[in-house]
Amino acid sequence: MFIRNIWYIAGWAKEVGEQPLARRICNEAIVLFRNKDGVVGALADRCCHRGAPLSLGTVVGGGLECGYHGMVFDAAGACVSIPGQEKIPASARVTSYPLVEKDEFIWIWMGDAEKADVSKIVDYPYNNDYKNWPHKHGFYHIKSNYKLLVDNLMDLSHLGYVHKTTIGGDPDTHVNAKMDAKKTEQGVKITRWMPNCNPPPTYANGVKFNGKVDRWQEFEFLPPGNVIQWSGAVDVGQGAFEEGGSREGGFSLRVFHGVTPETESTCLYFWCVSNGYRQDDPQATQDLYDDVSKAFREDQAVIEAQQRCLDETGEDDLVSIVHDRGRVQMRRVIDDLITHETLSA
Amino acid sequence: MFIRNIWYIAGWAKEVGEQPLARRICNEAIVLFRNKDGVVGALADRCCHRGAPLSLGTVVGGGLECGYHGMVFDAAGACVSIPGQEKIPASARVTSYPLVEKDEFIWIWMGDAEKADVSKIVDYPYNNDYKNWPHKHGFYHIKSNYKLLVDNLMDLSHLGYVHKTTIGGDPDTHVNAKMDAKKTEQGVKITRWMPNCNPPPTYANGVKFNGKVDRWQEFEFLPPGNVIQWSGAVDVGQGAFEEGGSREGGFSLRVFHGVTPETESTCLYFWCVSNGYRQDDPQATQDLYDDVSKAFREDQAVIEAQQRCLDETGEDDLVSIVHDRGRVQMRRVIDDLITHETLSA
Amino acid sequence: MFIRNIWYIAGWAKEVGEQPLARRICNEAIVLFRNKDGVVGALADRCCHRGAPLSLGTVVGGGLECGYHGMVFDAAGACVSIPGQEKIPASARVTSYPLVEKDEFIWIWMGDAEKADVSKIVDYPYNNDYKNWPHKHGFYHIKSNYKLLVDNLMDLSHLGYVHKTTIGGDPDTHVNAKMDAKKTEQGVKITRWMPNCNPPPTYANGVKFNGKVDRWQEFEFLPPGNVIQWSGAVDVGQGAFEEGGSREGGFSLRVFHGVTPETESTCLYFWCVSNGYRQDDPQATQDLYDDVSKAFREDQAVIEAQQRCLDETGEDDLVSIVHDRGRVQMRRVIDDLITHETLSA
Repeated sequence: MFIRNIWYIAGWAKEVGEQPLARRICNEAIVLFRNKDGVVGALADRCCHRGAPLSLGTVVGGGLECGYHGMVFDAAGACVSIPGQEKIPASARVTSYPLVEKDEFIWIWMGDAEKADVSKIVDYPYNNDYKNWPHKHGFYHIKSNYKLLVDNLMDLSHLGYVHKTTIGGDPDTHVNAKMDAKKTEQGVKITRWMPNCNPPPTYANGVKFNGKVDRWQEFEFLPPGNVIQWSGAVDVGQGAFEEGGSREGGFSLRVFHGVTPETESTCLYFWCVSNGYRQDDPQATQDLYDDVSKAFREDQAVIEAQQRCLDETGEDDLVSIVHDRGRVQMRRVIDDLITHETLSA
Repeated sequence: MFIRNIWYIAGWAKEVGEQPLARRICNEAIVLFRNKDGVVGALADRCCHRGAPLSLGTVVGGGLECGYHGMVFDAAGACVSIPGQEKIPASARVTSYPLVEKDEFIWIWMGDAEKADVSKIVDYPYNNDYKNWPHKHGFYHIKSNYKLLVDNLMDLSHLGYVHKTTIGGDPDTHVNAKMDAKKTEQGVKITRWMPNCNPPPTYANGVKFNGKVDRWQEFEFLPPGNVIQWSGAVDVGQGAFEEGGSREGGFSLRVFHGVTPETESTCLYFWCVSNGYRQDDPQATQDLYDDVSKAFREDQAVIEAQQRCLDETGEDDLVSIVHDRGRVQMRRVIDDLITHETLSA
Repeated sequence: MFIRNIWYIAGWAKEVGEQPLARRICNEAIVLFRNKDGVVGALADRCCHRGAPLSLGTVVGGGLECGYHGMVFDAAGACVSIPGQEKIPASARVTSYPLVEKDEFIWIWMGDAEKADVSKIVDYPYNNDYKNWPHKHGFYHIKSNYKLLVDNLMDLSHLGYVHKTTIGGDPDTHVNAKMDAKKTEQGVKITRWMPNCNPPPTYANGVKFNGKVDRWQEFEFLPPGNVIQWSGAVDVGQGAFEEGGSREGGFSLRVFHGVTPETESTCLYFWCVSNGYRQDDPQATQDLYDDVSKAFREDQAVIEAQQRCLDETGEDDLVSIVHDRGRVQMRRVIDDLITHETLSA
């Protein structure tokens, strides 16, 4: 079951050109395309004539032409041309989806089109700021329910076990981290403080520290499956965790995690990592991207194995621990949104 | 659901030798084999002893010997030998299927054996005439219900979209074609006239035309899944479409399309294309075969994608258009035969 | 449906080290591991925290550490450590399974732990006697219910059809074999006598015979899926089948067949073949192993095909023949054990 009246990430803007792109979101088959004027559109990926996928078709002047018998559909889903036939029946149409291109993402609305409010789309201005936040995009197909991936992001105690050699570092740092988790207007925000610890390999490779560091992580969950991350570390003594102290000059990164359900047991993971420490050095951005790419594959391996277990057994008898606080709040936000939609339907 | 009391194509005659051949037809597992006297037989592909497939066995003097414990079955399905045991219980038998070798095909009867009337098998004498109709055989395994492939053959407006570079040519030719579709004694016949058009690539490669051509297509559907095609073109001015005119000297081909259901979502496509324009040139036959092989793979790609869509959604809400006339009549013939069998059962 | 209160083979002892090993037995996901003291343990392969497989974890001092968030479980399944949390809830535990290492096997008890009686484990001392019975281990994953593989071992008339070129030899030898099948205290024992026959290829390659041989086979089934085999042949004239005669000096082998259900349609085949004729020649042991490895792959091909047939049709209408006597008794032993468990549950 999915939240419907909400904006999901359907793709990276750069992925969608005139060549139609098939994508499944909330278990609906959708075709994304860019018309001759450069405007993106999203239709149900099934011609209303004989059921062929429109993603096998071609963008023409009037819209998207089916590759089987040539019917053309405009961005609103109306059939505007049937080869060899003048009259177009009113029933000749397919579902269309509201679509917005913003901050390098394509956002899609999966619910009642009349409720689609563009102001509700998550803001991520860093994607438009290559000078201060040079960044690179990733896209992973994950064979798990999207919530298992968001779970992963909301319980960071896994860093010392899953990511020892990359962004994690030694387990004790994470076990002993102080954590705060609180409900925000839309979602849940986790803050973690790791004073006087060793920098993890990715940090130490990016910046020269004097020795121990003060390290922080801020992760904000925004439904349905977005997590906005700011992490970093500076030398001990700068007062990173004190009023009047400074977080300048060390290592910091931002990550946008956009997790979109594909089916109940698969999801699309759009992520973007920004270099906040050596902005003028493209190799630093590339190295950071490479480390994060590897770390997220480590997450993928665990999460897909977890999904295979839960496919068999469900998760009703699982035991939550202290580190699950943020994760449990996140789940409640999702459950409440679904309950609200169900009751108001 | 399949028509039962009808002859299906089970294979090309040349495919069936002493080496048993496993084939699934109307979702029944069948083994085809040729006995020591050269006669073909068809049995259920499951030994009645322990359920091993008989297609792993060996043709011996008395019939087909199971490869597991050596029981032998004759062409009627009766067990004629149990190793180490004299008495053969009456229950030791497997289903056998009426089988006829004709016109290079193996035809199988999937219904009540007492109703199997050999005179009802489709005639296709061109397969025995290598002089006037030199030809080559194809066999494709298609991951769609057989009716989607027959649909494809009964709505030729797809030629300008799916087969632009081979047997189709430009879309307008097909969109503007005049078409007649009518019920025949057994099936449905479509006739199409395309006067004063450009010859498609396959035609132009086969024959030197002066310029524009008059082009025709005749497709006759014969249940359960056979379509007999005659297509061609001659120079404009020969009066191809007039009384007293001529269709000699240009390009023509014949195709037998034999589509046999394997399961509800897969089928076996036996096809054969005959060269009717440069009969003495084996390279012309080969070139024609190569073009058609490629074109039918184009159909396969669309149809298999269509099947994947319809697997999810069914086809109840699809919208028929003018070009579907022959296709809709074809579907009605199939539905009527199934209804008739159901009511008389 | 599986027998629960019985010892199954979970693996070869040499397979299980500190690196956790995932294995499915009676359709339960299990992780096998050896702790820092060299003792083997078996737990349900699912962490009680978030459902990640424990087989992705690491053996640490206190037991097995989950690779996701670091919880540690001892061999009894109790959680003994939760990172960053002092209190361990009583519900934090996973199922553990009784495990015994014996005769080079790991034996696992799949039922009520209180009923696990180590004295009930099958004895196979030959695995500890490399001097008189040099041997090699095999492990095949078979895509069939375990009973189809035991069926195969309890009806040896297949040897002349499936293993013509290896351990079988000519069909008539097997068809004409005299067979006795009788219930033993725990299982069923088949004895076969093949007097004055040709030795099969594997035998003739291993030992120089004068000509015809007297050949014997003894197969004892012990539930749930073990078959202990002793086979051999000596020159005719030694009186192999007579009181006071001798079975010394020819060819003989022992095989342990350990078949463990993985799922209802797959099983784990642990087998071990011992050379009883040229014990001082490692090449003879290797040659025997190679022949048997090949022969068991021949069985696998037939049995997996049989499973695919039975998946569709079941086995209710199959016809038993004389050679099925031992096989039918074996099935009855299994059925009786399941019935007994069901009634006493």
